[in-house]
Amino acid sequence: MWLLKDTPALFTDLYELTMAQVYFKKRMAETAYFEVYIRKLPENWGFFVMAGLDEVGTLLREFRFSQADIDYLRSIKLFTEDFLQYLATLKPDVKIRSLPEGTVFFPDEPVMEVAGPLICAQLLESYILNILGFSIIQATLATRISVAAKDAAVVDFGLRRCQGPVASLRSARAAQMAGFRATSNMFAARELDFTPSGTMAHSFIHVHESQEQAFRDFAEEYGENSILLVDTYDCIEGIKQAAELARQLHEEKNMKLRGIRIDSGDLVVLSKFAREHFRQQGVPFLKIFVSGDLDEFAIEELLARGAQVDGFGVGTRLAVSRFAPAVEIVYKIVQYGDRAVFKTSPGKETRPGRKTIKRIKDGHYERDIISPLKSDTDDLLKPFESAEKMPTIQQRLTSELSAIDDSIKATRSPAKYPVEFSQNSP
Amino acid sequence: MWLLKDTPALFTDLYELTMAQVYFKKRMAETAYFEVYIRKLPENWGFFVMAGLDEVGTLLREFRFSQADIDYLRSIKLFTEDFLQYLATLKPDVKIRSLPEGTVFFPDEPVMEVAGPLICAQLLESYILNILGFSIIQATLATRISVAAKDAAVVDFGLRRCQGPVASLRSARAAQMAGFRATSNMFAARELDFTPSGTMAHSFIHVHESQEQAFRDFAEEYGENSILLVDTYDCIEGIKQAAELARQLHEEKNMKLRGIRIDSGDLVVLSKFAREHFRQQGVPFLKIFVSGDLDEFAIEELLARGAQVDGFGVGTRLAVSRFAPAVEIVYKIVQYGDRAVFKTSPGKETRPGRKTIKRIKDGHYERDIISPLKSDTDDLLKPFESAEKMPTIQQRLTSELSAIDDSIKATRSPAKYPVEFSQNSP
Repeated sequence: MWLLKDTPALFTDLYELTMAQVYFKKRMAETAYFEVYIRKLPENWGFFVMAGLDEVGTLLREFRFSQADIDYLRSIKLFTEDFLQYLATLKPDVKIRSLPEGTVFFPDEPVMEVAGPLICAQLLESYILNILGFSIIQATLATRISVAAKDAAVVDFGLRRCQGPVASLRSARAAQMAGFRATSNMFAARELDFTPSGTMAHSFIHVHESQEQAFRDFAEEYGENSILLVDTYDCIEGIKQAAELARQLHEEKNMKLRGIRIDSGDLVVLSKFAREHFRQQGVPFLKIFVSGDLDEFAIEELLARGAQVDGFGVGTRLAVSRFAPAVEIVYKIVQYGDRAVFKTSPGKETRPGRKTIKRIKDGHYERDIISPLKSDTDDLLKPFESAEKMPTIQQRLTSELSAIDDSIKATRSPAKYPVEFSQNSP
Repeated sequence: MWLLKDTPALFTDLYELTMAQVYFKKRMAETAYFEVYIRKLPENWGFFVMAGLDEVGTLLREFRFSQADIDYLRSIKLFTEDFLQYLATLKPDVKIRSLPEGTVFFPDEPVMEVAGPLICAQLLESYILNILGFSIIQATLATRISVAAKDAAVVDFGLRRCQGPVASLRSARAAQMAGFRATSNMFAARELDFTPSGTMAHSFIHVHESQEQAFRDFAEEYGENSILLVDTYDCIEGIKQAAELARQLHEEKNMKLRGIRIDSGDLVVLSKFAREHFRQQGVPFLKIFVSGDLDEFAIEELLARGAQVDGFGVGTRLAVSRFAPAVEIVYKIVQYGDRAVFKTSPGKETRPGRKTIKRIKDGHYERDIISPLKSDTDDLLKPFESAEKMPTIQQRLTSELSAIDDSIKATRSPAKYPVEFSQNSP
């Protein structure tokens, strides 16, 4: 999928192009190896989940400078005509090794290696970082939320608060990967073949003469798909009205309304009241959905306090990754031609040379070892051509999660998974 | 501008469409008035800056359901054929009153009113919130950063870390509005007619035989546009090498290299050393640019500690709004037909009826008064047709900033600007 009208090549920083022109003039065209990794975990996170390869695949297929791009570059008077002509025909002739999507990984581990002629590999930096950074954040956070929600359904409600339409798609795809049941985002639902889900807004109640009438109108149209929003006025009263309508429709038409949504107030108290009330009124089939500033911390606490919830709607706090809106993801050259290279700025040291990751397993995952690349090594990084199908990715993530200790997956203060650099590592 | 390949109508939540079908069936077509406002300021913020009207304008022009959209909606089996045919020809027949871009505003103040037939006005909710929320966050944060940087130049470096390509454009446009000097994002530079800026990455040093050679190659190509990155290895040594090259080129060719960039280490110590060293070496024309996890807090502290900086490169912390990645922006119906409406969920009360904002001025801004709309009122909300030109917006923001007290603009713990609801307000 390529959502944008324009070609992707100009989604780059000026310095990638100014450096490229020097490489072009100096004929510096040996193979460069760039490594993508994340320096550290956000607070309370114990692992990352790989994601974003769908967009990387599209970037590689669609990457080219259009005539409009070339004309623009000419206009800024930094580039010579021979270099512009070179760019006009440039193809992203790179080879990629990557963790497959849905793989669990840890800081310092290379998640991707981009290898190719120096100019090509360099020009992809900005956009690959943009894709992988947020996609990994979203896949990891959606996984944390799924883990916290246990058996309850989770639905993505983030469209209105995420930082743009492409972000909304990255977020919905991550939710799908992590086992969310559905998304409210219709564009994402179509694009990803992901179940759309939605109920009603408070405005629906307001424009009706009464809440009862609003509930009736909705149920008349959507029957057993109806989820009634009960907290516009007094929530307890709303729960009672929903139960009464459900009881009537069940008696008169043998119809079972789907449930209710509570979007404010004390969700523990209100959901417990609703469950008990529905039982007493003979409508125990009504499901209880809750929403409103939820994340893995809130969900864990609600469940610990005994909230009666069949489904969580998660919006803002997933969509913008409230507590970790960015990670320190970097794209560092580790080898140029035959020469391993590294940087020694204080606090930003890098390890030179191409690498593999080996995962030591004994039923569960014990530790990872990062070593210099050798052809015969068992390696978590695999040659990447194009994205896998979603069920494959979902299954991988499920299997990965069952292989790592619960202590690593803890919502707060997780244990540290051991990652070592091998002895013969530089 | 409309960046996306697809029509915007499907960037909506399912519930907007399920509600719309009920309105269609029940012939609920009176004029609905929706109000957009933000419930509260993020920690340490004293004001907001209005932005996002360029995209809202495009949304209104481009809004339609394509045949592919209609086919998709049919496939999910919630909608009847007569409603789908209605959507296929729907135009966003709405009137908008809005704060002009660059206007300073405060919580609870309506920033936009969307008025139109109930279905139209409702269907725009998700995408308008998506546009305005992040655009306002970025314009406000960019302004805070500009205020903190005082006379130093600021450049947007955020492309690689922002949450998607559309987000990068919203961010760059906000930077432009707030008086940043340039952006590294080439797509944004072209799209916004904003100065592109860039230097070199650490990889440029690595692929050369030596740092001296890398500096020479760059200076040979870019002459007086050259900014040399000095912290790849030992930063003091890098500063000395840059000064030496600048001295030689100045002597031999009367060329003045532009400057250096420092991306790590103690920026106060290093920039002071650089300034003094450049003076001693007879190259005081070299500018000093710094980057690396900067935001308004870091910039304020650097300047307070006497850092010698001509320009700041700001990336991640602006691009994802590190400390306030979302705000509680809402789209609430305040009137349907002749009837004012409101909601009483605990903690989420809304005030019914259409409103105006009056700003009491006495040279500077004293306080705002929110009142029920009357035709003769002096109102900050203006009819909106299409976005203004950037210089108009920039001038408005500059003038607004000079009219509000420094205490409101403080980086930390700002004073609270007085906003009152008028006595005759409901």
